[in-house]
Amino acid sequence: METQTMKAILKDSPSYGLTMKRVSVPTPPGPNEVLIKLKVVSICGTDLHIYVWNKWAKNRIKPPIIVGHEIAGEVIAVGEGVKKVKVGDYVSADSHIPCQNCYQCRTNRMHVCKNTKIIGVDIDGGFAEYVKLPEIVIWKNDPSISPEFASVQEPFGNAIHTVFAEDVSAKSVLITGMGPIGLMAGMVCKAIGSSVVIATEVNPYRIELAKKAGIDYVINPIEEDVYDKIMKLTDGRGVDAFLEMSGKMNALYDGLRSLTNGGHAALLGVFDDDVSLNINDLIVFKGIRLYGITGRRMFETWEIGNQLLKHKLVDLSKVITHVFDFDDWEKGMKLMEKAESGKVILRVSD
Amino acid sequence: METQTMKAILKDSPSYGLTMKRVSVPTPPGPNEVLIKLKVVSICGTDLHIYVWNKWAKNRIKPPIIVGHEIAGEVIAVGEGVKKVKVGDYVSADSHIPCQNCYQCRTNRMHVCKNTKIIGVDIDGGFAEYVKLPEIVIWKNDPSISPEFASVQEPFGNAIHTVFAEDVSAKSVLITGMGPIGLMAGMVCKAIGSSVVIATEVNPYRIELAKKAGIDYVINPIEEDVYDKIMKLTDGRGVDAFLEMSGKMNALYDGLRSLTNGGHAALLGVFDDDVSLNINDLIVFKGIRLYGITGRRMFETWEIGNQLLKHKLVDLSKVITHVFDFDDWEKGMKLMEKAESGKVILRVSD
Amino acid sequence: METQTMKAILKDSPSYGLTMKRVSVPTPPGPNEVLIKLKVVSICGTDLHIYVWNKWAKNRIKPPIIVGHEIAGEVIAVGEGVKKVKVGDYVSADSHIPCQNCYQCRTNRMHVCKNTKIIGVDIDGGFAEYVKLPEIVIWKNDPSISPEFASVQEPFGNAIHTVFAEDVSAKSVLITGMGPIGLMAGMVCKAIGSSVVIATEVNPYRIELAKKAGIDYVINPIEEDVYDKIMKLTDGRGVDAFLEMSGKMNALYDGLRSLTNGGHAALLGVFDDDVSLNINDLIVFKGIRLYGITGRRMFETWEIGNQLLKHKLVDLSKVITHVFDFDDWEKGMKLMEKAESGKVILRVSD
Amino acid sequence: METQTMKAILKDSPSYGLTMKRVSVPTPPGPNEVLIKLKVVSICGTDLHIYVWNKWAKNRIKPPIIVGHEIAGEVIAVGEGVKKVKVGDYVSADSHIPCQNCYQCRTNRMHVCKNTKIIGVDIDGGFAEYVKLPEIVIWKNDPSISPEFASVQEPFGNAIHTVFAEDVSAKSVLITGMGPIGLMAGMVCKAIGSSVVIATEVNPYRIELAKKAGIDYVINPIEEDVYDKIMKLTDGRGVDAFLEMSGKMNALYDGLRSLTNGGHAALLGVFDDDVSLNINDLIVFKGIRLYGITGRRMFETWEIGNQLLKHKLVDLSKVITHVFDFDDWEKGMKLMEKAESGKVILRVSD
Repeated sequence: METQTMKAILKDSPSYGLTMKRVSVPTPPGPNEVLIKLKVVSICGTDLHIYVWNKWAKNRIKPPIIVGHEIAGEVIAVGEGVKKVKVGDYVSADSHIPCQNCYQCRTNRMHVCKNTKIIGVDIDGGFAEYVKLPEIVIWKNDPSISPEFASVQEPFGNAIHTVFAEDVSAKSVLITGMGPIGLMAGMVCKAIGSSVVIATEVNPYRIELAKKAGIDYVINPIEEDVYDKIMKLTDGRGVDAFLEMSGKMNALYDGLRSLTNGGHAALLGVFDDDVSLNINDLIVFKGIRLYGITGRRMFETWEIGNQLLKHKLVDLSKVITHVFDFDDWEKGMKLMEKAESGKVILRVSD
Repeated sequence: METQTMKAILKDSPSYGLTMKRVSVPTPPGPNEVLIKLKVVSICGTDLHIYVWNKWAKNRIKPPIIVGHEIAGEVIAVGEGVKKVKVGDYVSADSHIPCQNCYQCRTNRMHVCKNTKIIGVDIDGGFAEYVKLPEIVIWKNDPSISPEFASVQEPFGNAIHTVFAEDVSAKSVLITGMGPIGLMAGMVCKAIGSSVVIATEVNPYRIELAKKAGIDYVINPIEEDVYDKIMKLTDGRGVDAFLEMSGKMNALYDGLRSLTNGGHAALLGVFDDDVSLNINDLIVFKGIRLYGITGRRMFETWEIGNQLLKHKLVDLSKVITHVFDFDDWEKGMKLMEKAESGKVILRVSD
Repeated sequence: METQTMKAILKDSPSYGLTMKRVSVPTPPGPNEVLIKLKVVSICGTDLHIYVWNKWAKNRIKPPIIVGHEIAGEVIAVGEGVKKVKVGDYVSADSHIPCQNCYQCRTNRMHVCKNTKIIGVDIDGGFAEYVKLPEIVIWKNDPSISPEFASVQEPFGNAIHTVFAEDVSAKSVLITGMGPIGLMAGMVCKAIGSSVVIATEVNPYRIELAKKAGIDYVINPIEEDVYDKIMKLTDGRGVDAFLEMSGKMNALYDGLRSLTNGGHAALLGVFDDDVSLNINDLIVFKGIRLYGITGRRMFETWEIGNQLLKHKLVDLSKVITHVFDFDDWEKGMKLMEKAESGKVILRVSD
Repeated sequence: METQTMKAILKDSPSYGLTMKRVSVPTPPGPNEVLIKLKVVSICGTDLHIYVWNKWAKNRIKPPIIVGHEIAGEVIAVGEGVKKVKVGDYVSADSHIPCQNCYQCRTNRMHVCKNTKIIGVDIDGGFAEYVKLPEIVIWKNDPSISPEFASVQEPFGNAIHTVFAEDVSAKSVLITGMGPIGLMAGMVCKAIGSSVVIATEVNPYRIELAKKAGIDYVINPIEEDVYDKIMKLTDGRGVDAFLEMSGKMNALYDGLRSLTNGGHAALLGVFDDDVSLNINDLIVFKGIRLYGITGRRMFETWEIGNQLLKHKLVDLSKVITHVFDFDDWEKGMKLMEKAESGKVILRVSD
């Protein structure tokens, strides 16, 4: 029998760009593995980093590799021992594959597994017609959730994980950075009753998206002093919670400064360089709590996302700005490269 | 009637040193105020900073002022409205006077009050025969606790506040810095069943104190690589908890690096300068929680200290290295200046 | 100078009913006391118990006493030492006066003070033109909140305290009993993004109120099997959270049974008699957490309420069904006696 | 090839007693299964219930079945897909087999899985020379822990799970019932610095064991009033924490009554009948938190136990009173039937 092939988007040489080409479909699933036929995938900032071949990508990615890790599709085969899903199930996946064996994994902290492998980064990803994944990362979708929303659950989970670092209901929140995850975090805060949601953003396209999504105040740090404005908006208290989504040192500084004593900060953004801080004044004497956020709790975070989507408490259509056919994937990359998009969706199959 | 006088230790000019001299005893207590006759006081690093007149002291202290804030004594008069204590009660005090009126104070977070005044820093302190304090900071001591231990409850509270940032029972702990608070933190960890307590310290006197106090391992960072040693001591996991008590950038870096993914850090040490960190690798990707610690929870932290002392779960005699008569106070300061002491006690009256 | 008098509603004999009559205005405030001119008060179930002179009232109330504890008014005099408010401030009050001196009070748990006195139950209350209260219970209202809503903050606080026993955002919630507090709890759950809010209630008036207030499903236990219905509404999971607001044994049983394994229950309702339960099946083997709820955290709960009202996240007009002039107070009592009302407001002055 | 046989202890008919006889060794492990050669097993109260064939056993057990679920042994074969262990590993096992697929399992609450199967109750257990178990329940033992202690980790985990419902360091604790789990809970409390550990017990043998194990006070409810005695021992406060380990209604009542306002109770004991309680006074008005405890968190609880044993913070030899050869198993059962033992160990192989 001849090998079947499929369309896939690959990094196949160590340089700018990605290539769509035909490759072999994955081999049948082994024990605890699941084979998925993709319906919809979505483009993450990580995919863009690999596309533009930035410093991080050069150090981490070993071509050739199929990229992509935000997915929704249908199970078409399962290996021995698989219990969570069966053929025909509608699924998505967490992008972080835990080892299931380290100290962290054994104590229900798989999201900080020391041996994590990332789909589309360390192993072949989901920008393809089929992808084979270990059962441990599979999430069975609620049928009421569209494939477009289902695919976006993965970064939505980052947003949720950050928002739920502590309870922000009836609290004031600052979110620095209105990229897709920051924007979704803002929508989650509004859905769970934060008293005021304030964002900072410099990009006019994203400022507009944030306003349309219902963020209460969007501060452009180029035009206004963030600290002064926040003090005005919070009766001089400062915000109760600060969610860092930009990876910018000024945002971190403004955010910690604007935090009320005894408040908390959750950091998801990735910084370009080391960050220099007055730890005494910004952290110690204020008695704040600071959370480093990575991945999603598997699967508490997914379950929260499921509830928010199933019960229509968050409308992800406000963050999805573009939908392309799979073959037109590069249009999406280019929009993201120009930062003129929210989430970009690719339709792989019906 | 002529004004009564008392002995007190003052900063009375903006230069190196302190002076013991006679000053007026405090005026009678007003509403919600308490007058205390001191039995025992103890010297804090802050008192030393004022003595040596360092940069912080120059900016903060307005002479003349009576210094000192670690105290134990007897209530000899109470103002109108005082409910917590009566004349004859045996008391100590938290050094941070909260405004009782700000957002933090109204929500049971008086330790991070925005308008805190510190005894012996912002108002006349307790290195004197009498001190007048607002009722809000008064703590009624258990009679089984000696005045020496009672006076040390204040910095002991810093240690407890740091240790109890999260539960460290059955967890491995790193404490950077074996000054008196670090040492007491180590004793508290041992008392509540931390699995392994590892310390770092460079001062031979303090290394010796730490070993005598039962710290499991004391690493001298000059002689050993902290990260490597900790990995050996924790089967390659890293520590579950990191308590920063030194205010040294290297200690912060080593500690965060040695923390297991998903662990937590509590920072009490005050840093000389801004600190530069790789926030991605040390905080975000590790998914750690970081707590800025200041003061003591009023009075949950004091209650924990009370239980630990009353039930002899911690023996503060291991941190008290010197006891002087009040008049010999400067001997204690000099020892502290040379870092050749643990806690130094001054006996004011019987 | 002749004694000034004021109108007040008193229990002045140990029998059914209350009396409005003129009594002396309170004496000037002593240390840490505040004198308030009432604008609006609201009727609590407790006031009704005293009115109808039920078993609890007979045991607890010593006539003559002015009743009422849900209030909003203006400070017109303050005693020595008062810091939180000044003359002219717009205030409400927690009804539980803590001793400020017991173990609970010293550790920030004033709501479970062992020596609590209740306004309008143990000391003269607020159904009067003036009331004198200790500063500790005073809450300074946000000026944007109407006196009607401000007065209702006290029972609203009960609702919030119950809802916030654990985080219910993105969780399914069952509330048994749609009296005013149950109804407000349901509105709070909706405001903070509970995925589904299900209520049980038998009273048609209250069922109607609940539906108008946006409760997702109201089950009448007389007409439907509560457990079966909840299983249907939750895909067989059961609810994540159960808030008991009825004091009915069947409600407690249905609620615990309908709770998902590992869920939590918060109990505010007061039961007529001892309750018999299969603790093994309903609590132990399900691994649930159960919270007894009394009063309000002072003042974390009030601050949450303040934010929810100030930012219009909850609309208390949906629970306020009747507003009367002070002189018409008995019309309100009668409506409450027939259970044909939500909250009933009395306007004391402009 | 002829079938190999092994010794095993079975319930093979629906009547009093158990039988040791030869049965087939388990078939080779399938996907995600592990075959273990037992070294040491220990007898649980559940095994005794099955032995004496009590009401619970009659309803639940379907003979023939091999009993026993507290085990320590060596992996001698692994099925496909097994990642946590390999042949030669030294292991124990949680007795609760979670489905890995329900709401609870998907959200890291496997200990309250709705479809749990229990080893030695629902499937063949470990009182045998070999047992085959799913990988999910396997725990890899630290080599420093003896097989006797390793086998007891399972009930030790119940004790830990109960103690760690909330932090009890520096808190006073009441434990009702000094059976093996109650006794171990007491030792854990001492190890993590509870200020006072008070127990109740009527059985003289167990009272003696408790005293030898270092429990601070053991009250015999037949001889002393539990509430009065606890009030004396806690300066009138009541205990901060109450761990119910007896399944006796009086114990539950005394414990809740003796709990300080705002304290917490953790219930592990199984009650013979429904329990009747004054929920108002014992739970609601006291503002307590009550935890139903079942099984062990998989595997956070195991990890705590591992640390406590590895670092010799708890000495299980104080609870192990008898060790028998496997063939002498019935001697152990008889001792347990008479309640004249702590944990009873059976040595299956070297």
